[in-house]
Amino acid sequence: MSKEQRARIDAMLRQPRPEGPRSVEELRDGFKALMAGMIVPDTIRVTRTTLGHRPALYIEPDNGSRAGTILYFHGGGFVFGSPETALSLTGHLVARTGLGAYSPDYRLAPEHPFPAAIEDALSAYRALLDSGLDPSAIVFAGDSAGGGLTVTTCLAARDAGLPLPAAIVAFSPGLDATRTGESMDTKEGIDPIFTRKAVEHTGAMYLAGADPRQPLLSPAVLADLTGFPPMLIQVGSNEILLDDSTRLAARARAAGVDVILDITADVPHVFQSFAGVLDEADEALDRAALFLTQRIHAGRAAHTAAK
Amino acid sequence: MSKEQRARIDAMLRQPRPEGPRSVEELRDGFKALMAGMIVPDTIRVTRTTLGHRPALYIEPDNGSRAGTILYFHGGGFVFGSPETALSLTGHLVARTGLGAYSPDYRLAPEHPFPAAIEDALSAYRALLDSGLDPSAIVFAGDSAGGGLTVTTCLAARDAGLPLPAAIVAFSPGLDATRTGESMDTKEGIDPIFTRKAVEHTGAMYLAGADPRQPLLSPAVLADLTGFPPMLIQVGSNEILLDDSTRLAARARAAGVDVILDITADVPHVFQSFAGVLDEADEALDRAALFLTQRIHAGRAAHTAAK
Repeated sequence: MSKEQRARIDAMLRQPRPEGPRSVEELRDGFKALMAGMIVPDTIRVTRTTLGHRPALYIEPDNGSRAGTILYFHGGGFVFGSPETALSLTGHLVARTGLGAYSPDYRLAPEHPFPAAIEDALSAYRALLDSGLDPSAIVFAGDSAGGGLTVTTCLAARDAGLPLPAAIVAFSPGLDATRTGESMDTKEGIDPIFTRKAVEHTGAMYLAGADPRQPLLSPAVLADLTGFPPMLIQVGSNEILLDDSTRLAARARAAGVDVILDITADVPHVFQSFAGVLDEADEALDRAALFLTQRIHAGRAAHTAAK
Repeated sequence: MSKEQRARIDAMLRQPRPEGPRSVEELRDGFKALMAGMIVPDTIRVTRTTLGHRPALYIEPDNGSRAGTILYFHGGGFVFGSPETALSLTGHLVARTGLGAYSPDYRLAPEHPFPAAIEDALSAYRALLDSGLDPSAIVFAGDSAGGGLTVTTCLAARDAGLPLPAAIVAFSPGLDATRTGESMDTKEGIDPIFTRKAVEHTGAMYLAGADPRQPLLSPAVLADLTGFPPMLIQVGSNEILLDDSTRLAARARAAGVDVILDITADVPHVFQSFAGVLDEADEALDRAALFLTQRIHAGRAAHTAAK
């Protein structure tokens, strides 16, 4: 990235932070303020709706959407964030793919710990299927904790006997509540956003005492990904969460799943949020959009062929 | 892939093979016959030329090329193949990107073992630089042994003090003459094309007694990739060469290089050759073309900014 891009991003990330641990409300307000600075494309239309008994946003291109639907899961450590804080990411994917997107407001910890978020995400997916959408025309996408939900919701869907979506896109996903990735230590102090302490602080609220050694909490370490749809994982090389992605990709390879592990050097966590500011963000989103378009197209073709 | 696609590919791969080890000429003729069946786009123009004192093909879109040049290295185990046998791959990249491509006819083993191919590839790159092309407008691409050359030529260029190209694209690259990847054993019998015996047969001709434990022969095991340009590696999950790619990608990550490891399940070695027949081939080429276009564009922007 250029010096100007770095300066702009540093300014966006530099939030006034109170000393000591912050309250849940402070975390939520701080994240909301940070994400309010992100650029939302002006070629989308946003509607408030409900999906699977939860509030949700529906985002579509303002010139009408193509056949196919993104189910988007926002980030925020399962403690903060909302469809609104992820609107830049969701909107950029919608604007680039022409697909419509649902972004459910899943329940958050500490009020609603694990597995509430996964239950709500699965309900949202089930509602899409119940509405008559073909799974081959649905893709999951998400960032950070929501990137984790793209995988764990797929696991939960498979366990529930549901058909799986056509593809998964995960931006800097959190995939390991055991926090055993090497990058948790090797990137500490290099990661411009996260520390082990910070992720363990919110992580503990989501766990609420649950054993992290289970696939729905630590899929990068424990999940069997057999039968998963093609996956695209994008992550920054400096992230403490890097090895959440590298280990999930290795598990996907071992399970015979199509998987693209797309690593960008020297960018912050969920750098795609900086679309319009950072070239790497726009380029990564273009690659994600091509991948989604290919999978929706292939999914439809396979469905047609199977008839 | 569909049943029809698989049947067509199986038929294309099913060459009459004489019993026992084949002579070099038989290998060359068999490969030429196989590759003659691949689809070459009809929107390109091919010119015979020379580059770095070797014969070469120049391939461009027939409606004129964009600024930026692909230096393409054909596959064939360093023993067979030519710019003509790779014309489908090179042509599809040219047609998709709008870039022109040079494809040098580098010297082959056993007549010209290691490091002749790398010397010729480096001469070709040096000739492009000497012609006044900016390295930020040059990308390396190649398949199989030529995928290996994309990496080793970059190493040789760095050792020679030359600036590096803007990007590397490698299709099923061969990157380890020590043959120590796990997939060499775990994918034996699963890989629809290669066996350890076959790659060691041609590999020995290229080595001609050289120690495989050196970066120019086994970059996936030994190369320091610091300062390398962004890389896209595409490989099939069933290939015995799979771990050549996974280990190179891990080394690239460790060196802070942008790297996309793009794995497609259940496809043969250099499946991109089946463009026009196999959906996965066309989709992978589309992803490669987007990546190249992004890097040529970014390279030009960086060069302009540096002025």
